[in-house]
Amino acid sequence: MTMTADPNANANTNRDHRDHTWLVILAGGIGSRFWPLSRAARPKQMLDFFGDGPMLRVTFERALPLSAPERTLIVTSGALVDEIAALLPELPRANILAEPLGRNTAPAIAWAASIARQADPDAIIAVLPADHYIPNRSAFVASAAKATAIAAGHEGAGPTHLVTLGIEPTRPDTGYGYIQRGAARPDGSFDVKCFVEKPDLARAASYLAEGSYAWNAGMFFMSAALFLAELRRHEPALGALFDTLVAENHDQASLISATVSAYPGMKGVSIDYAVMEKSERVVVLPASFAWSDVGAWPALMDHRQPETSTFAHGEVLEIDGGDNVLVSGDGGIIAAIGVSGLTIVHTRDATLVVPTADAQRVREVVAALAAAGKAHLL
Amino acid sequence: MTMTADPNANANTNRDHRDHTWLVILAGGIGSRFWPLSRAARPKQMLDFFGDGPMLRVTFERALPLSAPERTLIVTSGALVDEIAALLPELPRANILAEPLGRNTAPAIAWAASIARQADPDAIIAVLPADHYIPNRSAFVASAAKATAIAAGHEGAGPTHLVTLGIEPTRPDTGYGYIQRGAARPDGSFDVKCFVEKPDLARAASYLAEGSYAWNAGMFFMSAALFLAELRRHEPALGALFDTLVAENHDQASLISATVSAYPGMKGVSIDYAVMEKSERVVVLPASFAWSDVGAWPALMDHRQPETSTFAHGEVLEIDGGDNVLVSGDGGIIAAIGVSGLTIVHTRDATLVVPTADAQRVREVVAALAAAGKAHLL
Repeated sequence: MTMTADPNANANTNRDHRDHTWLVILAGGIGSRFWPLSRAARPKQMLDFFGDGPMLRVTFERALPLSAPERTLIVTSGALVDEIAALLPELPRANILAEPLGRNTAPAIAWAASIARQADPDAIIAVLPADHYIPNRSAFVASAAKATAIAAGHEGAGPTHLVTLGIEPTRPDTGYGYIQRGAARPDGSFDVKCFVEKPDLARAASYLAEGSYAWNAGMFFMSAALFLAELRRHEPALGALFDTLVAENHDQASLISATVSAYPGMKGVSIDYAVMEKSERVVVLPASFAWSDVGAWPALMDHRQPETSTFAHGEVLEIDGGDNVLVSGDGGIIAAIGVSGLTIVHTRDATLVVPTADAQRVREVVAALAAAGKAHLL
Repeated sequence: MTMTADPNANANTNRDHRDHTWLVILAGGIGSRFWPLSRAARPKQMLDFFGDGPMLRVTFERALPLSAPERTLIVTSGALVDEIAALLPELPRANILAEPLGRNTAPAIAWAASIARQADPDAIIAVLPADHYIPNRSAFVASAAKATAIAAGHEGAGPTHLVTLGIEPTRPDTGYGYIQRGAARPDGSFDVKCFVEKPDLARAASYLAEGSYAWNAGMFFMSAALFLAELRRHEPALGALFDTLVAENHDQASLISATVSAYPGMKGVSIDYAVMEKSERVVVLPASFAWSDVGAWPALMDHRQPETSTFAHGEVLEIDGGDNVLVSGDGGIIAAIGVSGLTIVHTRDATLVVPTADAQRVREVVAALAAAGKAHLL
């Protein structure tokens, strides 16, 4: 075994985008549309719908080729810190940023961007929701690596654009926001003509036919410094607040605790509304991997095994019937006889039965339980 | 406070049928038609469908005015002894007769009759299933007391007949056996023309129209000695076996342990087939109290609260929909949105969903789980 005189020399030679890339995984949220499986203490991102592990763990592993555990930040709620630390043991515990309360995505991303920029002025952040389904890991990594390179900008010129992924739509989905592409750019990305909120079916169909619209997957690849500059431009109060936090706190620990203290006073606003829909520096990179935000129970019908009419998770005994969403949690069993078109969810202390077409009405259940003070069921 | 010279004198003066009456509560059986709420370790008779307590406890309390705890015998399976002892703490533990395996009702009743006769040659046994629904306790007690008096016979003449209750039918139920009345007798009972098994709907309707048929509720009031004599006549081997057991064991403890040893060699046969359908000493006493054997999930529809279309047990949140059987066990909750005609049962480790009209198919589930070796779910 030979040793080099300077063990860091080799590492320095190999420095590339990966060494500057920080993963920012957004793992807040409760996912009440998946009640009763999802609860405050077990939100959607901690669930394993597809048998490959909790969605947060899968998200982390899928993105890890872009970065490293020590450059991965998880933004979540305080109640989940211990569980996430157990789920991602390779992560430094200090990298789990616990929001004292929800303030939407712009403050969450600004917080993570500030920490990344403090550690590395050239940091590129890859912002990834923790609860999306992307079965093809290598296709994701290829698209994300390209987006990261575009976000890093040309050698010398530095970062000039914020990059969002636009997923090629495969159906006129009314549950997603869309991004309309403008002019093509030399690096393979496109100018953004506009962001559009969830359309009705007729408009979604016209977007699909028109061909220049992509699904907004909520994944962003950005220079931390450029993002904070754009935040300062379009949400001056929030941008100035983070400028002050960074100026007054010179290590990660103090920056985190100061941000926690300042959090309740921040404006709750989404990154789309605060920056993406306003900044002229946003570009969209088309991506064609299969993707779903797994927004509610009916979405699971898209994830059925081939040749099966029912989506089944956990132990399920279906006799006759079909076209059901059967999700059995907590190691229990669902026995369904002669029923179809239903979403049936079993957990240790609650069962949901609803026609899949009406499954969004689970929110009425959650609201009723909250109104009745049944916090143990939420 | 005065004292009598002989403290037994007063008791002896008050001796009546009640002092000779023994309750024999049949609490074997598994009730797999109520899966997943009923399990081997929690059969139907231990369940509380109606909010008034476990059915066995309710049966005991309902019948207690006829007798006393020390003259109450429970025939059940060994697995349930501890639970029953906890449920009926006023009962001497030795009065819980644990069958080493199921041998149907004739051996179970003969065993209890032998113990009662050993303690009291004039014992009258009131044989009561542990899992029937009879809301009007005083009407039951009035009918049962009359049946007991008929079974005890006239002063001097002694017991001459085995008495069964015949419930006046209120609908052409195809789930019950029927008893056709013959000639009226002076004591208010009737000769039995015949027992008939569960009829089809046309025959059940004709029975209802004809007017001389009653439901066979499986409740019998009999001199223990006369029952054993009739058993000896119509099932000689079984009768002789119990004669030997009684002759060779002179106290309750040894009679119980000897019977347990002999049990596996006994013929498994019902009291109806062994004695009731054959003996010419059987009479039927009409009774008109509300009664149900609560045989399977659909039977619960008969027990809905007034003005409600759904039978609900446990914590249930029904939004729209109706005409459901919603049974939530183990302290959990069922949320049902926009469904109707379903039986939905939640327990800690299993959920059942089936159209109520097909709920008898739960047997297929139980069979499949047994075939798959999932004993923990049975």
